[in-house]
This record gives sequence, structure tokens and C-alpha cells, in this order.
Amino acid sequence: MPLVVVGSVAIDHVQTPTDRRDNLLGGSATHFSYAASFFTSVRLVGVVGDDWPAEHTAMLDARGIDTSGLHQVAGGKTFTWTGRYHDNMNDRDTLDVQLNVFGEFDPVLPEAYRRAKYVFLANGVPAVQMKVLSQVPGRRLAVADTMDLWINIAREDLDKLLTQLDGLVLNDSEAKLIAQTENLVTAGHRVKEMGPKFVIIKKGEHGAMFFSDHETYVLPAFPTPRVIDPTGAGDSFAGGMMGYLSEQDNFEPETLKTALAYGILVASFNVEGFGLERLQEITREDIEDRMAEYRKMLSF
Amino acid sequence: MPLVVVGSVAIDHVQTPTDRRDNLLGGSATHFSYAASFFTSVRLVGVVGDDWPAEHTAMLDARGIDTSGLHQVAGGKTFTWTGRYHDNMNDRDTLDVQLNVFGEFDPVLPEAYRRAKYVFLANGVPAVQMKVLSQVPGRRLAVADTMDLWINIAREDLDKLLTQLDGLVLNDSEAKLIAQTENLVTAGHRVKEMGPKFVIIKKGEHGAMFFSDHETYVLPAFPTPRVIDPTGAGDSFAGGMMGYLSEQDNFEPETLKTALAYGILVASFNVEGFGLERLQEITREDIEDRMAEYRKMLSF
Repeated sequence: MPLVVVGSVAIDHVQTPTDRRDNLLGGSATHFSYAASFFTSVRLVGVVGDDWPAEHTAMLDARGIDTSGLHQVAGGKTFTWTGRYHDNMNDRDTLDVQLNVFGEFDPVLPEAYRRAKYVFLANGVPAVQMKVLSQVPGRRLAVADTMDLWINIAREDLDKLLTQLDGLVLNDSEAKLIAQTENLVTAGHRVKEMGPKFVIIKKGEHGAMFFSDHETYVLPAFPTPRVIDPTGAGDSFAGGMMGYLSEQDNFEPETLKTALAYGILVASFNVEGFGLERLQEITREDIEDRMAEYRKMLSF
Repeated sequence: MPLVVVGSVAIDHVQTPTDRRDNLLGGSATHFSYAASFFTSVRLVGVVGDDWPAEHTAMLDARGIDTSGLHQVAGGKTFTWTGRYHDNMNDRDTLDVQLNVFGEFDPVLPEAYRRAKYVFLANGVPAVQMKVLSQVPGRRLAVADTMDLWINIAREDLDKLLTQLDGLVLNDSEAKLIAQTENLVTAGHRVKEMGPKFVIIKKGEHGAMFFSDHETYVLPAFPTPRVIDPTGAGDSFAGGMMGYLSEQDNFEPETLKTALAYGILVASFNVEGFGLERLQEITREDIEDRMAEYRKMLSF
């Protein structure tokens, strides 16, 4: 089943305690799409400027990612993000953000995308996320990401969005902020009460938690010692998860848990290189090998 | 197989964001012993003053914990700790510590204890921990806990101790400190290189990691929403783990992983009440029920 993702496409400049890379292909929709493309065909919706290197689009096309929804604005510049990671590789400072054409992103889905059954709304303005949902009325599963900014400045829209979602993915600090509690288990349940049928809290190096009416569980991260660049880990997590659900074309509780595990594993590869470098080196077979290790790790 | 534990026995005063309790039965050896007593017979070595309430000893005796190694110092006062937890229930401030008789703790094991096969050295002065080891020459498994204080002020002794241990248990910040790295996977391996055959890093609400020559794995914490008082969680984790190993009387890799899971589950009960309150309410059957849930949570 094709999977539609709407989100940012960006040029990243990343500094870590020991290294740096400029002009990386970045953005939430990009990391999501690449991660999901191990499992299913992806239809990308995003916006770039005329400074956008054509080889990036060619690379995505070669992965079977449909880029007909990637809008290029003549005379515009692509969203850029510059960040520096702390020694712990978890905290980071944003040194510079240039929203450029992404600042006026008004996603219009190509006709072929509108019949999609699986939709992921990467982090973005909640009102825009809702506008996307209205373009895919026949969807079976809509999942969104969000961030502290929208919790703080667009809470009303976000609350409305939550009632229209099947699933919400957010990180631990965002969950604590929106639910006003320091206990993540309580936070997960509270966010679920706000509308979505399930909530996934991403805990970075500590894995992810899942909450639905009947289930609460936690899966740990895969313990990789090679943490090179965490940028896009959360988006590649969501991409692996949604990609697997689209491939299986169901979201029964058992499938959802397996999907969460795939998301965790794809994210564990994502952090092993700058930008998409590591994901570009691996195959589905590498993911399956790590899945076998992961299942073994969790059985006793 | 009987299990010997040497460590602190204390009176705790605990404040949380919403509640407080005074004069709780606390201390590392106490939490450890109670947790381990669900699985095996425990022999406790500790020291208290003549202010020590006899009913505490009676309660431990009633659990089948051998307190003949609990030395009472005439004219002395029992170790007391007063602490306040932050809103996140993870960080805490120590408001007051009175080491009292524990400051001159010089553990001498009763004759019957010296033939023990399973030994746990709760957090303490590394030189004293080594002195205990020398009293149980026929041991089969010796595991110790430590803390940042000894890493900072008694590193030479600690390094010597590490070469005499089968296992070391420490928390995430201590592992980062001793191994001088922010990456926990790297930290675990580095600490193992310092001597112990296996290393366990406790991550509090995020579970625990295990490192041996042939294995690296992570198990998540059990997601309890009822976090009332985390005091003693790490000691009850170690108690559950060592108790199970002593009960099984082996420490094969498979048994060790199951033991780690039992430790995680006993700790998840420990935090659900002040001091030992919650552990005193439950039975082995409650632990087994939670184990069934936990295994289900980790399978997909």
C-alpha cells in the first residue's frame, strides 16, 4: 500500500563533538521517506527552492519514492537547518534556521496521492497538518508527529488535530509538556485521552513506549555503540514503523508492535552515519538481521 | 543457595513532590535483602545503633532473612538519610546524611556466612568491599555496586576491587563517569575491560543494560504509572536479580538474562510505595504475574 508523507525537505549542516558535515540532504519527510522505502512505495509531499540539487531528487526517485509531490518554488530557497550536538549526542543547539520556502508551505496533494490509505504528517503547523488530512478523506490510518513549539503556540489547532488522528508520535519531553506530568506512563495515557487511538512516545536512546486503550508497552532501543549523528532518528523511526504497516496493510495490535520494533531498528541504523549516509549503505536484509538479533535480545 | 549481602541499614526520611514519610526502614542491604527474600534465603551483614527499633529486625527475621550478621553498636546511632525527590521522581537532593555507626562499618562475617557461594557487596567503601571478599574465599559469584563518590575519591581501590568481581552493577551516570564517555554501550564495554566478567548499567525508569564478553543487551523497565518513592529501586533490582541467581544456583547467560528481568520487576514494585511498603504487600505470585505481562510485552 502506498504511503503518503507530508513534511520538511531541507539542507542540514550538522556539527558533532568530533566531526561536521555541511549540505546534507535533511528534513523530516526525507528521513521518513527513505526509512519507509525499505518496506513500501512512498509518496512524498514537500517544498524546495530553486537552489535544490537535482541529484537529491534523482536519488529519492531511484529509491522508488514518488517525488511528484515535491514542489519546487522558482526564486525561492530551500529550508536549511544548522545544529550542534552536545557531548551526550542527545541534546543539541540549533545554531541557525532558515525556513525559506518551507515557511509558506501549503501542501497540495497530487490527484494520485489523494486515494492514499496510509498518511504520515511529519512535524509541522497543526492547521496545515489538518488541511492535508482533508485532502485524503478515504484514508485508513493517519499518524502525525508534533513538537513543543506547536504545543506552546498553536494548542487549540493541535487539540483539534488530535481528534482527527489514528496515532500520534512525539518525544518524551513533548509528551511531558502536553500532558503536564513528569511520569511518561501517565503522559501517554493522557495524550491518548486527547483523541488519538494510539500514542507513541519516542525516548531516543531509551527506545519507545506505546499506549492504546488496551495496551501499554515499552521497547528498548537497539544498543548500537556507533552514534554518529542522531539527526532524523525520530523521523526514520516513524518511517520504518509506517512503512511496515503499509507493507502489511493492517494495523492490528500485533502488527503495530512489530512495526514499532522496525521503527526502532531503522532509527538505530539512521544514527550510525551523518544524514542518510548509513541508511544508503544498508538493505532490507540488514534490517532483518538486526531484527533477529533484537528478538533474541528480548527473549529469555 | 544462601545469599550474603553486606551493606547499609538505615533510617530514611523521604520527601516527594506530593508526600513525605519519616523513619522508614531503609538502606541498601535492607532493600536488597527484602527483594532477594522472594527467591532465596538471605544472610544480612550490617550495622545499626542502639536506637534501632527491634521490630525492624523482627520483620526481617520473619521474612527468613538471617540477621545474625546485623551488628548493633551500644551507644551508637543508626545511619540516617533524608532526601527530597524532584518533580521528575528521578533526581533527588540529599538534605541530610548522618553516617553514625555506618561510618566505621567493619564487616565481620559470622562463621556460617563464610561458606556462602553468592555474595553481593552493596555500595560502600571499596577497601571494605574487598575485605568482605577475603572472608568468602569459596564464593562462586561476587557482584558489587558502587557510586560516583568512590569513583572520584577511591579510584585505586575501586580498580583493584573490579579485578576481583564477577559482576558490577552501577547506574548510568556512574558508568559514564568511570568510563569517561557519554555513550552507554561504550561505557559498559569499557567497565567490563576493567575486570568484571559482566557489567550491568541501571537506567532507572529506562531499564537496564547487560555487558559480557559475548553479549550486550537492554531490557526496558516495567512501565508502572505508580511511582511513589524510587528510594532503594537499584538495591531491590540487585536483590531480585541475585536472589533469582541464588535460587537457580547457576549463572549461565540465559539465567542471567532472566535474573535481570526479575530484578527489573522487583524494582518496579519497590517504587510503587514508600520504603519497603509495597514489597511488603506482594507475594512471589505477584512477581510471576508481572513477569508474564513483561514477557508478553517484549514478544511480537
